[in-house]
Amino acid sequence: MSDALVIAGNSYQSRLLVGTGKYKDFAETRAAIDASGAEIVTVAIRRTNIGQNANEPSLLDYLPPSEFTYLPNTAGCYSADDAVRTLRLARELLDDHRLVKLEVLGDPNTLYPNVTETLAAAKTLVKEGFEVMVYTSDDPIIAKQLEDIGCVAVMPLASLIGSGMGILNPWNLQIIIESARIPVLVDAGVGCASDAAIAMELGCAGVLMNTAIAAARDPVLMASAMKKAVEAGRESFLAGRMAKKLYSASPSSPTTGMIG
Amino acid sequence: MSDALVIAGNSYQSRLLVGTGKYKDFAETRAAIDASGAEIVTVAIRRTNIGQNANEPSLLDYLPPSEFTYLPNTAGCYSADDAVRTLRLARELLDDHRLVKLEVLGDPNTLYPNVTETLAAAKTLVKEGFEVMVYTSDDPIIAKQLEDIGCVAVMPLASLIGSGMGILNPWNLQIIIESARIPVLVDAGVGCASDAAIAMELGCAGVLMNTAIAAARDPVLMASAMKKAVEAGRESFLAGRMAKKLYSASPSSPTTGMIG
Amino acid sequence: MSDALVIAGNSYQSRLLVGTGKYKDFAETRAAIDASGAEIVTVAIRRTNIGQNANEPSLLDYLPPSEFTYLPNTAGCYSADDAVRTLRLARELLDDHRLVKLEVLGDPNTLYPNVTETLAAAKTLVKEGFEVMVYTSDDPIIAKQLEDIGCVAVMPLASLIGSGMGILNPWNLQIIIESARIPVLVDAGVGCASDAAIAMELGCAGVLMNTAIAAARDPVLMASAMKKAVEAGRESFLAGRMAKKLYSASPSSPTTGMIG
Amino acid sequence: MSDALVIAGNSYQSRLLVGTGKYKDFAETRAAIDASGAEIVTVAIRRTNIGQNANEPSLLDYLPPSEFTYLPNTAGCYSADDAVRTLRLARELLDDHRLVKLEVLGDPNTLYPNVTETLAAAKTLVKEGFEVMVYTSDDPIIAKQLEDIGCVAVMPLASLIGSGMGILNPWNLQIIIESARIPVLVDAGVGCASDAAIAMELGCAGVLMNTAIAAARDPVLMASAMKKAVEAGRESFLAGRMAKKLYSASPSSPTTGMIG
Repeated sequence: MSDALVIAGNSYQSRLLVGTGKYKDFAETRAAIDASGAEIVTVAIRRTNIGQNANEPSLLDYLPPSEFTYLPNTAGCYSADDAVRTLRLARELLDDHRLVKLEVLGDPNTLYPNVTETLAAAKTLVKEGFEVMVYTSDDPIIAKQLEDIGCVAVMPLASLIGSGMGILNPWNLQIIIESARIPVLVDAGVGCASDAAIAMELGCAGVLMNTAIAAARDPVLMASAMKKAVEAGRESFLAGRMAKKLYSASPSSPTTGMIG
Repeated sequence: MSDALVIAGNSYQSRLLVGTGKYKDFAETRAAIDASGAEIVTVAIRRTNIGQNANEPSLLDYLPPSEFTYLPNTAGCYSADDAVRTLRLARELLDDHRLVKLEVLGDPNTLYPNVTETLAAAKTLVKEGFEVMVYTSDDPIIAKQLEDIGCVAVMPLASLIGSGMGILNPWNLQIIIESARIPVLVDAGVGCASDAAIAMELGCAGVLMNTAIAAARDPVLMASAMKKAVEAGRESFLAGRMAKKLYSASPSSPTTGMIG
Repeated sequence: MSDALVIAGNSYQSRLLVGTGKYKDFAETRAAIDASGAEIVTVAIRRTNIGQNANEPSLLDYLPPSEFTYLPNTAGCYSADDAVRTLRLARELLDDHRLVKLEVLGDPNTLYPNVTETLAAAKTLVKEGFEVMVYTSDDPIIAKQLEDIGCVAVMPLASLIGSGMGILNPWNLQIIIESARIPVLVDAGVGCASDAAIAMELGCAGVLMNTAIAAARDPVLMASAMKKAVEAGRESFLAGRMAKKLYSASPSSPTTGMIG
Repeated sequence: MSDALVIAGNSYQSRLLVGTGKYKDFAETRAAIDASGAEIVTVAIRRTNIGQNANEPSLLDYLPPSEFTYLPNTAGCYSADDAVRTLRLARELLDDHRLVKLEVLGDPNTLYPNVTETLAAAKTLVKEGFEVMVYTSDDPIIAKQLEDIGCVAVMPLASLIGSGMGILNPWNLQIIIESARIPVLVDAGVGCASDAAIAMELGCAGVLMNTAIAAARDPVLMASAMKKAVEAGRESFLAGRMAKKLYSASPSSPTTGMIG
């Protein structure tokens, strides 16, 4: 079955995108990413050496850009200006690389996105020719505005960055997915394999995660779990699940009554 | 990683057990089971021809007992007597086969298990030398009694047979799993891939399903999804998931307050 | 609006039944029960002095049987024999009182009900003329068997005794309520006011609780909260709630898709 | 217990605010509002006659402003300009009335708030001396910005307007409540009494609803249910609920494991 993820005109076989931070060392990063099967890896430009510091180990040596699609991100940015500046730097460091992940956060405590700054940054970046995959809240109106600006993918949170709380509001995600004409990927909040499967069963085009893998007791095994979970969820979505009934002989769907 | 499921002294690589009913024909049954990777297949003795009717197609031709471990079951039995009689017949038909799935249901409407009849049947069957995998409710006291009788695996429901409602009470399953010394498999109620992954993340030894695969729009693709979901959930369980926090900087677990 | 709770032929205005244990002293017990508006109070015969110890303070002095309907219970009993013996004693202590609450637990750790011993005790007690309100699991088949034996009310758990976990499986409760011809009351597991309201919205005839009130920081205020919550839930049930839709203009109920 | 709700310096005994639309006629509106005990009633200026049409029945005759605090709202407005214009009109109609409810919606299909337009309108209205109670999403960063602008209350949705889906993301509400210095009221999404109780148990200062009452089969009875539910939830919050444990003897909180 051909079922590629297409972002900004490029096709990917894997629908799991992964971060590169929070690992013990670059060797563990590489081992986990190999186990995940991810083709797109996101890199926090402000925290990761991809050539800024010539005398330190560079992620580029462990994850050669010839093997992986780099997705520079703006982790740690709290304003549109900061985010734009950071991605311009990434573009220089990575030979006019245009595919980026924009995130502008609201405060360092919750790491909830600042959607007004995100909108402002997205406008500027799209104008400057970036292909913007944008991290955002699960607000369907904002998601649509980001699409209208010209972002190439919209990436709502499942729950807060680093929380592992899973998908707190599948209903908002459903509304976003139903109206989007660009890929919708869940980014942030996935904590275990079933969370990733649920995201895909909702109809997401992909899932992006970092902490769920890097902070597991066994990151490489969890990366393998996530690879299978994303595939399982995608196939479960495509296969068309059975209808729910409270019990087999029930005349109606389970939620016509008080519950659900 | 060696991580076999051991039931009654035999090892299995797959933790997904599947039913053989509700398919279009035996060819589809076989294709779905191949995609699922299941080694143990359960067969409703009262509904499936495994030799009782010499002139009709036999499941044995499509799923040769040399390739699969048969698990005759008592679907359609509402009393201990009926169930015991059915499994004695299966033993004859399958050359003194001893591994069986016992289920005694309470009524034809909900298909909820009748636990008192189940206990009675289990006692008789264990005495007669059967290796009993037993379908039951999620009642932890009954589960323990079934273990004490000598059943080789206890298989609580996630939700009702044919409902696809998923795991309605993970807490009871958790209590059963924590105190069991025999394998605990979720049987009944799984509707989609994430349900199967959740069951495994709870620490189940395996999952048994039928309708979720057979009643999907594309049963073979759903079987593949379930194979991956069970493996993903198992690996996610073994890998040790990250801790949950409401937000990254939160000083405490998410449920010390009012919610959760 | 006349909307009395009728149990064993007697009418009650309050649908909240409360326990009498776990309070600081009998004075606090009385204050909380007054705030709760409860007319039926349940008493653990093995733990509470209602005359067994002539020289100690007696609950009867604080909650005169002329003002409250006593419901002696078998808390602490782990076999049918124990439970029957305990209730015979209560009958003597309370002048041939017949309305009782039967509970037989499975183990002192989880306090999950032992349904087989409960069935046995119920049979004996009904034969001896007791009016048995019976605590049980949320197993619909067992609930029906207890009704068939002649119990006057069936009282499934919401979650385990003393857990405060709320209603873990509303679906099983719904099945029990739909098929019962005697009052169904939720007993055990309620932790806060909304839990009680949810139980009533499911169609329960009443709610019985103890720890949720006695272990609150302010038991008397929580008792008042529970009084209002039970009334609110009852009225909400009777008023017929609005239909759910994912969004106002949605053409269908929210659960025709993947979620819910 | 004195436990008044204080908004813009005024004290209210009732924490339930209600809408005035969707009723059969003004007489039913009045009966339901009386049963609800609400002191603040919100009025859609674009849909309700409060004097704009001199020859038609006026809500003012049924709900005299001497008895109720009017809260004119901007239902039906999709831009900041529209909302501001509508509230200026209300101010004229209601003798320089300053307390208003601002809502700016994103589209007529979902009725999800447009937070950027809401921010713009709030700035203008606060500058013009309005006391702005503002309807918004459950985005904690936006909620904080609205507070910083000078709104007198922030009113996040529980779920979409007219959906009756209840509280979809209690976690976001919790974050908003924990950091707010102005009253936080849940507005939109409540469908039944337990939803209102849950909102109050989360620590909300109040609840605003319309459809849940007006679209119930018996609006007046549902109004009474909501009155009690809001009081129950408030008292449950103030009383300090018992701790949750998976089972009574459990050494830890229920969510240290995989679930929850």
